[in-house]
Amino acid sequence: MSKQPRQLSLGAFLMAGGHHVAAWRHPDVQANPLDFSSYKRTAQIAEAALFDAIFVADSVAASTDAIASHTSRSVYFEPLTLLAALSAVTERIGLISTVTTSYNEPYHVARKFASLDHLSGGRCGWNLVTSDAAAEAYNFGRDAHIPHAERYARAREFHKVVTGLWDSWADDAFGRDKEAGQFYEPTKLHVLNHVGEHFNVQGPLNVARSPQGRPVIVQAGSSETGRELAAETAEVVFTAQTSLAKAQAFYADLKGRLAQFGRREDSLKIMPGVFVVVGQSTSEAREKFEQFQELVEPQVGVALLGRMLGNFDLSGYPLDGPLPELPLTENGQQSRQKLLTELAGAENLTLAQLGRRIAGGRGHYSLIGTASDIADELQAWFEGRAADGFNVLVPHLPAGLEDVANYVVPELQRRGLFRTQYQGSTLREHLGLSRPANQFF
Amino acid sequence: MSKQPRQLSLGAFLMAGGHHVAAWRHPDVQANPLDFSSYKRTAQIAEAALFDAIFVADSVAASTDAIASHTSRSVYFEPLTLLAALSAVTERIGLISTVTTSYNEPYHVARKFASLDHLSGGRCGWNLVTSDAAAEAYNFGRDAHIPHAERYARAREFHKVVTGLWDSWADDAFGRDKEAGQFYEPTKLHVLNHVGEHFNVQGPLNVARSPQGRPVIVQAGSSETGRELAAETAEVVFTAQTSLAKAQAFYADLKGRLAQFGRREDSLKIMPGVFVVVGQSTSEAREKFEQFQELVEPQVGVALLGRMLGNFDLSGYPLDGPLPELPLTENGQQSRQKLLTELAGAENLTLAQLGRRIAGGRGHYSLIGTASDIADELQAWFEGRAADGFNVLVPHLPAGLEDVANYVVPELQRRGLFRTQYQGSTLREHLGLSRPANQFF
Repeated sequence: MSKQPRQLSLGAFLMAGGHHVAAWRHPDVQANPLDFSSYKRTAQIAEAALFDAIFVADSVAASTDAIASHTSRSVYFEPLTLLAALSAVTERIGLISTVTTSYNEPYHVARKFASLDHLSGGRCGWNLVTSDAAAEAYNFGRDAHIPHAERYARAREFHKVVTGLWDSWADDAFGRDKEAGQFYEPTKLHVLNHVGEHFNVQGPLNVARSPQGRPVIVQAGSSETGRELAAETAEVVFTAQTSLAKAQAFYADLKGRLAQFGRREDSLKIMPGVFVVVGQSTSEAREKFEQFQELVEPQVGVALLGRMLGNFDLSGYPLDGPLPELPLTENGQQSRQKLLTELAGAENLTLAQLGRRIAGGRGHYSLIGTASDIADELQAWFEGRAADGFNVLVPHLPAGLEDVANYVVPELQRRGLFRTQYQGSTLREHLGLSRPANQFF
Repeated sequence: MSKQPRQLSLGAFLMAGGHHVAAWRHPDVQANPLDFSSYKRTAQIAEAALFDAIFVADSVAASTDAIASHTSRSVYFEPLTLLAALSAVTERIGLISTVTTSYNEPYHVARKFASLDHLSGGRCGWNLVTSDAAAEAYNFGRDAHIPHAERYARAREFHKVVTGLWDSWADDAFGRDKEAGQFYEPTKLHVLNHVGEHFNVQGPLNVARSPQGRPVIVQAGSSETGRELAAETAEVVFTAQTSLAKAQAFYADLKGRLAQFGRREDSLKIMPGVFVVVGQSTSEAREKFEQFQELVEPQVGVALLGRMLGNFDLSGYPLDGPLPELPLTENGQQSRQKLLTELAGAENLTLAQLGRRIAGGRGHYSLIGTASDIADELQAWFEGRAADGFNVLVPHLPAGLEDVANYVVPELQRRGLFRTQYQGSTLREHLGLSRPANQFF
C-alpha cells in the first residue's frame, strides 16, 4: 500500500447569516439568527463537501453597545444545544463548539461534551477558551473580569479536571452482563477527587467514556500564555494570521513548543482562519465582495475595529480622520493592534476606510478570487509549513459555503490535497489524531 | 362551535431501558444507556401516539454506592443535549428536562432552555428542581449539601432571574430592517440588572424571546415549601401519589393555593406519575410484570428502597427480616417513608419483599391490566379531580410505551378523553397553557 500523502483539513466556521458584518442586510441572506433550518442546511453542505468539522464561536453575554442594534450578533443559539440538534441530522462531520472556562463549572462542561460525543458517534470537539469580555463576568455574579493570568491558570486546571472526568470509566467498564446482573465492573471506575486552586470536584462523571476517548481539544489563544497552554493541551489551534510569513512564524513557534511536553508535531493541527470569496473570475469575486462592502455602515465598521483593537470605543473620533493613537491593549490583542496600526499608516486610511477594510474577514486572511487562485494560496500555506488546514469563513451563509464546496474543494481534490471521501467516522479520524489512552486504566 | 370537552395530558417519562430497576436484564431490552437510536425511536412512538411531551429526569452526579454496579443508572445522556438532538427528529411533541437550581447558574440555564425552545419551535419545558443528593455538591466545590430551606430560597430567586432573562427582549424587538440597517429596536431590550441574595446577573440574555414566550415551568416538589413554590411559579406539577384519595387531597391542596398568587386553577396542570403494564388480559399483564420482578436481585430492591425512604443504607439488615425502624428522613421524603412503613406492617412484608414491591414503579401508582382497566383508572382520577393528566412510566422502553400507544391511547380516545390529532404546535398549546406576556414590555 502506498502511503497517503499529507492531506489538509477544512473546518467551516458557522455564524448566523455569514461572517461579513453586513451580511444580514444582503437581499439573499436569511437574517433570522435563530433559524435552525439555515444551520441544518449549512451543516449538510459542509458534510457533503467532506469538511472535517463545523465550528461555532460563543459568548455568554449579549453585545449591547452603541452599534449593536445595527449588527446581527446580539442573539444566537447556545452552541451545545445547536450542535446536539445538528448531530441528529448529519452523519460524519465533526462538531466543534467554543465554551469558556472562565464562567463555567468543569463538571457541567465535561458532561455536556461527553454526552455530545456519544450522541454524535464520536464527532465532537471543544474549543477551550478564556473569556475576554467583561460583560460575561457581570452575568455570573462578578463585579469585574478575571485578570488575564488568573484566567489562564483557571483554564489549565479546568482542562485537567475535565480530562480527568472524561477518564472516569475504563473503555470496557460496562460489560452489561444480564445473566450475572453485573452492569459495570467496579474496579473499572475511577473517582477523581480533584482538590485544586480553583476547583474541588469529586467525580466520577455520569457519562461513560466517549467514542473518541476524549472530545478533541481545540484552542485559539495566541498570547505567550495561550501558546504555552496550547502546546501542552491543544490538539487543534485556530488562529488569525494575516500573511504567509507570519503564519509560518506562528506555526514554527507553536510546533517547536511541543517537544518540551513530550508531544510529536503531528499531535497538534494548526488551522488558520481564511475568509474566502469565490468567483468564476477575479473580477466576479471582487464584485461579490463589494456587494457586501457597500452595505457596511461606517460607524459599524469603526465599532468593529474598536473591538478588534482591544475593546476601544472609537465612536468619538471623526470618521474621515486617521486612526487615533491608542494605548497598548490589555486584552490579548496586541499583535492585531500593531498590525492594523501599520496597515492604516502604510495606506493612509481614514478611520471609516480601515473599519470597512476589516468588516469582511474580521481580521482573518482574505482570499478573493477564482477557485484556482484560492487553491494556490491554500496550497502554498499548507506546503510551506504555515498550516495543517484551514478554518473557512465566508461572507454569507449558506451560499458562500456552497461556492467553496462547488469550486474550491474540487480544485483541492484535483491537486491531491483533500479527501475524496471520508475515511473514518470520528472527528479524530478525520483530523488524523490518535485516540487518547485513559490516564487511569 | 361546540366547546371541546376537557382533555387529559400525557407525558412519556423516558429512562434508558425503562423504569423497572431490572429492565436492563430483560432479553428484549437494549441495555446501552447511551444509545441515541433507542431514544429516537421512543420519542417517535410517543409523538405518533400524540403525547403532550417526553420527559427526562436528571442528576449531576453518578451513583457509586454498593449496588450501583448492579443497576443501569450510573451513566446517561446529559438531558439538554439529548433533547436538542431529539428536537431535530421530531415535529410536534414537547420536550421536558429536569435541571437543578442548586448547582447551576441562572444565565446558563435560561440560555439553554431558550435556545432549545427556538430549536424545537416552542416545544420545551424545564422541570425546575432542587438537588437532594449530597454527591452533587461534591462535584461543584462544596463540602456539604445545601440545606433544604436554602435550596428552596435559591430556587425561587433562580426562577425569578431566569424568567427575567427570558423577557430580555420584546417579542417584536427584531425588526431586521435591511434597508435602514436596523437589526433590532434598542427600546425593546431590557437589561435585568438583578442583584439578590444568591445571584447578581446583569443580562440581557443573548437569545431572543422564545416561541413560547417562556419555556413551560414544571416542578415536582411535594414538601410544604415545594408546594408553595409550585403554587407561585409552576405550570405543570409531576407528583407520585399512591391512591385516588391521596391524589385528590394533593390536587385540592395545590389548586387551592393558586388564588393567593392571583392564579386561576387551570394555569397549573397536575400530572401524577403512573406505572403502566398493559396486557390483552389481566393475567397476561401480570405475567409481563412478573418477568421483570423475577430479575430483581434482593439487595438491589432493598438498596432502591433505602434511597426512596430517604437515602438510608439498609444493606446491614437481614433480607428476610422486617423493615427496621428508621429515624424520620430529612430529605423531603417523609410522606413516602410513612406510606411504605404502613404498607410493610399491613402486609407483614420482609425487607426483600418490600424492596421488590417498589422495584417496578419506583413509588408511583401502578396499573397492571387491560387497556380498559387502565383507562377506567385514569378516567376516574381525571374526572375525580385527582389529575389533569399523567406522566407515564413503563417497565421497559420502547416496547412498554408501544403497548400504551397501541392499546391505552386508543381506548382513551374512544372515551373522548384524549386528542385524536395535535391541535397546536407548541408544548403550551398541547397543555392548554397560555403564552405569558413579557413582564417588561
